[in-house]
Amino acid sequence: MKLNISVKGTEDIAFWNNVDFCVGTGRAGLALTEEYLKELSFVQDIIGFKHIRGHGLFTDDLAIYHKRKDFFTGEVTVEYNFTYLDRIMDAYLERNIVPFLELGFMPNEMASGTQSVFYWKGNTTPPKDYNDWTTMVTVTLSHLVKRYGEQVYSWPIEVWNEPNLPGFWKDADMNEYFRLFKETFLAIKKLDARFRIGGPAICGVRDKEWMQAFFDFCKKEGIKPDFATRHHYTTELPKPQGHYGYQQLSNPELGFLNLQSSRDIIDSFEEFKGMEMHLTEFNTSYIPNCPLHDTNENAAYLAYQLERLGETSYSYSYWTFGDVFEERGVPFTLFHGGFGLVAHGNIPKPTFWTFAFYKRLQDAAKRCVYKGRNGVIVETKDGGYQGIFWNLSDSEQVDIQVKLPAEDKEYTLLKETVDEVTTNPLKAWHDLGEPRNPSKSEIEIIRRFAYPFCESDILTKSRGKVGFDVTVRPHGVVYAELKKRCFEGDTGFTYGRRE
Amino acid sequence: MKLNISVKGTEDIAFWNNVDFCVGTGRAGLALTEEYLKELSFVQDIIGFKHIRGHGLFTDDLAIYHKRKDFFTGEVTVEYNFTYLDRIMDAYLERNIVPFLELGFMPNEMASGTQSVFYWKGNTTPPKDYNDWTTMVTVTLSHLVKRYGEQVYSWPIEVWNEPNLPGFWKDADMNEYFRLFKETFLAIKKLDARFRIGGPAICGVRDKEWMQAFFDFCKKEGIKPDFATRHHYTTELPKPQGHYGYQQLSNPELGFLNLQSSRDIIDSFEEFKGMEMHLTEFNTSYIPNCPLHDTNENAAYLAYQLERLGETSYSYSYWTFGDVFEERGVPFTLFHGGFGLVAHGNIPKPTFWTFAFYKRLQDAAKRCVYKGRNGVIVETKDGGYQGIFWNLSDSEQVDIQVKLPAEDKEYTLLKETVDEVTTNPLKAWHDLGEPRNPSKSEIEIIRRFAYPFCESDILTKSRGKVGFDVTVRPHGVVYAELKKRCFEGDTGFTYGRRE
Amino acid sequence: MKLNISVKGTEDIAFWNNVDFCVGTGRAGLALTEEYLKELSFVQDIIGFKHIRGHGLFTDDLAIYHKRKDFFTGEVTVEYNFTYLDRIMDAYLERNIVPFLELGFMPNEMASGTQSVFYWKGNTTPPKDYNDWTTMVTVTLSHLVKRYGEQVYSWPIEVWNEPNLPGFWKDADMNEYFRLFKETFLAIKKLDARFRIGGPAICGVRDKEWMQAFFDFCKKEGIKPDFATRHHYTTELPKPQGHYGYQQLSNPELGFLNLQSSRDIIDSFEEFKGMEMHLTEFNTSYIPNCPLHDTNENAAYLAYQLERLGETSYSYSYWTFGDVFEERGVPFTLFHGGFGLVAHGNIPKPTFWTFAFYKRLQDAAKRCVYKGRNGVIVETKDGGYQGIFWNLSDSEQVDIQVKLPAEDKEYTLLKETVDEVTTNPLKAWHDLGEPRNPSKSEIEIIRRFAYPFCESDILTKSRGKVGFDVTVRPHGVVYAELKKRCFEGDTGFTYGRRE
Amino acid sequence: MKLNISVKGTEDIAFWNNVDFCVGTGRAGLALTEEYLKELSFVQDIIGFKHIRGHGLFTDDLAIYHKRKDFFTGEVTVEYNFTYLDRIMDAYLERNIVPFLELGFMPNEMASGTQSVFYWKGNTTPPKDYNDWTTMVTVTLSHLVKRYGEQVYSWPIEVWNEPNLPGFWKDADMNEYFRLFKETFLAIKKLDARFRIGGPAICGVRDKEWMQAFFDFCKKEGIKPDFATRHHYTTELPKPQGHYGYQQLSNPELGFLNLQSSRDIIDSFEEFKGMEMHLTEFNTSYIPNCPLHDTNENAAYLAYQLERLGETSYSYSYWTFGDVFEERGVPFTLFHGGFGLVAHGNIPKPTFWTFAFYKRLQDAAKRCVYKGRNGVIVETKDGGYQGIFWNLSDSEQVDIQVKLPAEDKEYTLLKETVDEVTTNPLKAWHDLGEPRNPSKSEIEIIRRFAYPFCESDILTKSRGKVGFDVTVRPHGVVYAELKKRCFEGDTGFTYGRRE
Repeated sequence: MKLNISVKGTEDIAFWNNVDFCVGTGRAGLALTEEYLKELSFVQDIIGFKHIRGHGLFTDDLAIYHKRKDFFTGEVTVEYNFTYLDRIMDAYLERNIVPFLELGFMPNEMASGTQSVFYWKGNTTPPKDYNDWTTMVTVTLSHLVKRYGEQVYSWPIEVWNEPNLPGFWKDADMNEYFRLFKETFLAIKKLDARFRIGGPAICGVRDKEWMQAFFDFCKKEGIKPDFATRHHYTTELPKPQGHYGYQQLSNPELGFLNLQSSRDIIDSFEEFKGMEMHLTEFNTSYIPNCPLHDTNENAAYLAYQLERLGETSYSYSYWTFGDVFEERGVPFTLFHGGFGLVAHGNIPKPTFWTFAFYKRLQDAAKRCVYKGRNGVIVETKDGGYQGIFWNLSDSEQVDIQVKLPAEDKEYTLLKETVDEVTTNPLKAWHDLGEPRNPSKSEIEIIRRFAYPFCESDILTKSRGKVGFDVTVRPHGVVYAELKKRCFEGDTGFTYGRRE
Repeated sequence: MKLNISVKGTEDIAFWNNVDFCVGTGRAGLALTEEYLKELSFVQDIIGFKHIRGHGLFTDDLAIYHKRKDFFTGEVTVEYNFTYLDRIMDAYLERNIVPFLELGFMPNEMASGTQSVFYWKGNTTPPKDYNDWTTMVTVTLSHLVKRYGEQVYSWPIEVWNEPNLPGFWKDADMNEYFRLFKETFLAIKKLDARFRIGGPAICGVRDKEWMQAFFDFCKKEGIKPDFATRHHYTTELPKPQGHYGYQQLSNPELGFLNLQSSRDIIDSFEEFKGMEMHLTEFNTSYIPNCPLHDTNENAAYLAYQLERLGETSYSYSYWTFGDVFEERGVPFTLFHGGFGLVAHGNIPKPTFWTFAFYKRLQDAAKRCVYKGRNGVIVETKDGGYQGIFWNLSDSEQVDIQVKLPAEDKEYTLLKETVDEVTTNPLKAWHDLGEPRNPSKSEIEIIRRFAYPFCESDILTKSRGKVGFDVTVRPHGVVYAELKKRCFEGDTGFTYGRRE
Repeated sequence: MKLNISVKGTEDIAFWNNVDFCVGTGRAGLALTEEYLKELSFVQDIIGFKHIRGHGLFTDDLAIYHKRKDFFTGEVTVEYNFTYLDRIMDAYLERNIVPFLELGFMPNEMASGTQSVFYWKGNTTPPKDYNDWTTMVTVTLSHLVKRYGEQVYSWPIEVWNEPNLPGFWKDADMNEYFRLFKETFLAIKKLDARFRIGGPAICGVRDKEWMQAFFDFCKKEGIKPDFATRHHYTTELPKPQGHYGYQQLSNPELGFLNLQSSRDIIDSFEEFKGMEMHLTEFNTSYIPNCPLHDTNENAAYLAYQLERLGETSYSYSYWTFGDVFEERGVPFTLFHGGFGLVAHGNIPKPTFWTFAFYKRLQDAAKRCVYKGRNGVIVETKDGGYQGIFWNLSDSEQVDIQVKLPAEDKEYTLLKETVDEVTTNPLKAWHDLGEPRNPSKSEIEIIRRFAYPFCESDILTKSRGKVGFDVTVRPHGVVYAELKKRCFEGDTGFTYGRRE
Repeated sequence: MKLNISVKGTEDIAFWNNVDFCVGTGRAGLALTEEYLKELSFVQDIIGFKHIRGHGLFTDDLAIYHKRKDFFTGEVTVEYNFTYLDRIMDAYLERNIVPFLELGFMPNEMASGTQSVFYWKGNTTPPKDYNDWTTMVTVTLSHLVKRYGEQVYSWPIEVWNEPNLPGFWKDADMNEYFRLFKETFLAIKKLDARFRIGGPAICGVRDKEWMQAFFDFCKKEGIKPDFATRHHYTTELPKPQGHYGYQQLSNPELGFLNLQSSRDIIDSFEEFKGMEMHLTEFNTSYIPNCPLHDTNENAAYLAYQLERLGETSYSYSYWTFGDVFEERGVPFTLFHGGFGLVAHGNIPKPTFWTFAFYKRLQDAAKRCVYKGRNGVIVETKDGGYQGIFWNLSDSEQVDIQVKLPAEDKEYTLLKETVDEVTTNPLKAWHDLGEPRNPSKSEIEIIRRFAYPFCESDILTKSRGKVGFDVTVRPHGVVYAELKKRCFEGDTGFTYGRRE
């Protein structure tokens, strides 16, 4: 396929790139582990997200909620233990990331039932007593404010996770969820109106119905959430095989339409029009054992997603940053189809680079000058350009010719390619015999296969333009950057001179 | 060019690969600096040399030798100051490297003249009093033994540097050098016979004459050096231009013949036959401002050198590990044609990888099964293979077909390519405008261009053999490794399956 | 109290100091966490243990044993997952420590019942099928050998933990334990006779009966364990109060007698005479919430223990190295009476120094020249002395005069004091208001209170002796070291001269 | 001596504590070395200065100024090399410190003579051509602005060093210095008026005469410097002995009077009244080999200096932060009487703590409530207190009773003592035999003797006050802090309960 991109320079295309706002994580308790924190450090060093969101804040392993019976008097006291919570928050802040708090799941001692979700058994039943719940929530938030100061008021708070699925919320009982939302919302706002609270945290099942009902309910109750939340996954049903589930990507346009429908419902309310909608989870596959996650195909598909998601959504939190994850148990092997941007041992997956590239655009962009089915280009604050190009096809190459307005005589072109040929750690691991828990030296070898291929060139202005070609192989993602070339050559040096 | 390599498996070819024995360094005083030590750490982490050799141990900036006049009595006392020496040796030992001690140059207060060499003014005149010199040498060695223990006896000691050049030794006075050697040798052996001492440390000027005379002298005096030393450079005369000097490579075979002539002279003495000959310096260009050092051409040329040098020489010390160097002054810019395997900021140059690849062969080799003008292959201890392939041509590609005896059904092929297309930090820097002292982020960008391109594959045995192709582009170096593929695949995983 | 110690120099007192052989740890799963590994790094850097032993290798959170039902065929397969085990072992080896393997507890899917122990619910029932158990054990050991090589054969293996308590082994069923031991022993020895296996891992309840019966059983069955194991705690029953249990120390001599009784039983068998006895757990209190652990009293008591334990036991593993521990739930506050040598945030407790001091003696000792109720002194390999002095009293000071044979004219005396005045982080924390999860800066402040007070002096030989005084305050521990003073003074320096 | 301090709480005493504004350093070239940067990191981590000032920016070893003769044309070109300068500035910025630029000394190729100062031979003659000088200065500043941005305009610039001494400026030629100042000042202001420039950088020799003449000159020429600079040393003449010089402290009040005289001269000019006066160097002794620097006496004397210097001076830069220093050659031994706050190997000297304590006061102070001959007390922003107490006597103890207004019921008292008994690394080194270049383990031992002794307590309000005692031994410095005690005790814990 051939594509010509010619930029005039007068374009100013709507392009909301909020790639670094939030990223997903496995259950809170896993944030105590060293491997998790190493992966998070790696991701933060190169990409750098602002918020992190995951389940399990109130699940038993975090040990926040306790009932203690006194040895002598037999009296029962409710106690809160923030030892692990503080340790996790300290670790987050050390890595320049703060939580997007998801309130859930239910402490067993507070729960009305025993239904649970996941290998790690998060209790998904309503509280026996809503008072206990809201007390726990407000005590926890007060503790965080005491320890971390006023910044806590800016940490978004989401009430529960995917209540529209019976697995995550008993019977997917909508009214019960609305009650949970209302009680929680009011209790927190009473503590301090500066806290920012949203919902309904739904995934794409009966989502229109839920979204409409949620805002009807809010309107009726006179509640104004600070933002709306939902999830976004884009694959067909999985075909199981051993520890894995294989899935096909769905048509991305259907997904965007689905998001637009949520957007439209929100905007249909006078009171809620324009409210921020956060995708508090998104990915291709929604299962933690789908080989797709580890592929270049995923990276290319995500490149297109990141270009478009801002059209409807304020933020979109990739589920998840790393492969320390236990929803279906402990991974048996290195590439287990996990959600992570990085695999164990800090091996970046191809999709990692899609995010890294969008982050560069976000940091430097002045305005967007091109946006299309295969690429996006921004002009940077210092008069250069940055573009990302991708290829969703699994067989056909895309050849792109780019022409851009030039101020200076010379530009440096930096190109980084991530495709099945250049950056395919999954294949390297496969070729090595698929080692389950690679040794340090095996990790090091595989990591060599996980970085982009880099090319550079000097572009010269001609008739007011600079031009260059980009070849994007199937499932490839290419980052290209043009910087004004500021020459500082030393006396006597000529590149390429040999004698 | 096409090349077929077919290995039977019965080959056992002489191949002395001692790549990690020693590496060169700028003057001792520079070892106090942070940039130097960072570069050394980088080199040691990936390659790991055993010894390090450079000039300036007794030059004034190391401040070992002093004459102090007492304030009250006016009496003059000789004092030794090992503060800097200890600091440097501590830093070396922390990085798992120990010195190949070069005794020189002359402290100004001890020197008979003022002649000096280099920007940093190493005094190159004989001592006023040989007693002062031998006392300083033995006091220094005693101090080292006291501080570092018996290991010091195994650190090779070389007397002076290139006395056959008038710049390095006043009038290139042969008899005066022999006197220096003899006095030094006897004084050290008297201190402890376990010390290992060698010479004559000459470069390739009148080298036959010097080598012959040196061993004639030793024989006559009844001295038996522990090893012989000389240098080896392989370029034509430089053409100066600004801060740079441009040089052409000479025919490598002439260099090997020259080394053989030294070997032959040594072996012609009954007493010295088979004595270790150490190339205590070698490189292509002998000037620290030759652009060649920073190129892929250099890397390919060195690959051939490292294959062949062991034919005559016990060790060969690349001059130098890093770009912290001051012989012609302080470098003005990043790629200044310095000797280093790494450039400032720990950017590995192409030649760095040549050494890294040979180090891998050295560590794992069981025997050599192929050695030729464009490559070398060894069988490894665990039944795999490692090969290095290179291309000295600047225009013609080399296509190599390799066939190797196979035991197992499947092998993993790992290939790493270093050539002008894949691994050319010099070009990246040039394209970026040749920044003189790149910022941290510029360093990071250039470093992305400095690593090998990696490919992997699965090879299947067919008729008792495994085969693969290697394409070596002009000035390219390719490392290839075959490992028996030990399959540990997880239940349900099929590489490439998409649905 | 006054004490005169006068050493002749001819003494050679039996003193088996194996302080660094092993240390205890919370359940294996906790070894995945960052705080745990930070504490372990700290302990290893300053003390440096060889082995580490704790519970929970086969408990569900480590996720080793699985039954998987195939989606299509419905067939059930047993699978082993070593992801977490490998991660933990890698982390141990990085910190120069290897396991003393305790085989236990039972995977729920393999267990014959649901009885469990601790907050973290280790299943303590026999296997449904002993074959499943021994297969799991041998598969695990084979995996370790494959990954870590032959060193694994030297890692001691202990079968289960405290089977003589019904909480740890259903009904404390002795015969069932003997069966477990036998089946496990035989299966492992069949795999490789080099593995080293011991038991019966009992604590001090009906311990004589169990020890006798265990070796009767072994004798009858013709089994020769490689070593014997038991535990050793030395406090009275706790008095509970809130989250804490207060306990008094018992008379240490009773504990030593108890250990001697085990020693005697073993030695009464011809076949087992002299067999190594390992205390695979010891401490003062056996509960993880006893304030005693955090005190100076504990440090002094342990000093006496470490002097004496070698009389009966080959090794003695302090329970535990750090405060990451969950047997009774997650600690609510910093000083929660945990077992650790260090508190959270790497604050060394007073007892930490007792171990650090004994480690110094172990490293340098040539022979023991004094051993008494308040101290121990060794002569070192380089002709100096090291002593540890302690005071078990809570009110009376001990004043010790020491006289030692001297070779040199001058000795440097280095003294380090750890007592309630000098080194009492518990008090500092208390004075600061007992912060629950101290911030970084609070941790830093408390840590300043956790290091020994240091004094130095120059001792001069007089009549062939050097003498010095040691004052040991109540609950104090003092380390004193004499080194031959090697004078290297610089020209002109006089200590104390002011003008 | 007894002292009662009773604070009402209404006090608001003038106390200008600018302890962290600037610190001195050995010559710029030494900032390339690893030991220097390790010491700087240590100092910055615990104290954290804003600026750093030292000599040698333009001395030859930094290699900024060059004349190159072209090989072919013979033409001579002036070239500037910022390789080392950039490396140093990068290292400073990484450590959160920026230069207080001292312009000097003269590049040999630019100098009118050969006179030099120090072992490292800084040329101290005027330029042959002032144009060359000002060009070099402005090119250098432009380069810094290009590389580091607008922050450079805030880095203070001082013209030369101690021109009133003939050793530092040929013939101490006042008119020649004024010319240098004027030409430099005008050239820089022409480049950008935002640069901040001061002088005359004099020491205390004929200082009144120079200060008066300098400002007379400025007034006459219509020049308004941005600040005035001078130095401040407080010892009598040294008595040399071997490598050392012994000095007595002078009466501190004479020094303060001398500073006041400079202040008065400046304030006598309408135009310059109130101008910032920076002590760009101060210390007790002005020689780098005075044992006093390493003593507790120095620490106590400095405590008094830091209390008073703000009365006349905007800032005061301790000469120097570390012991990497070469004015009189390379130090022969660890404690060589160097200027540093830390000794080699990052051993803090007693004086280090004086600075650390003043930094704490600076960070937290709301207002000063006490200032006297033996101490200073500030109230902190969070309602506590911080005080520093010292004892200049070498024989008499000072017993201080402090009473302070209290709001809360309980306060935590934290006390840190630095005196000859608690914190005397010089004595430890002496007792150890004065090792010249201590090994890692010797350094570690000595470092244990270099930290303050810490005590804590709980103070209870009584009649609106809290009171505590401070004992300051001879040459002692004591830091005391009162914090409101916020109690977070855990359920069941009672400090000191044993059963």
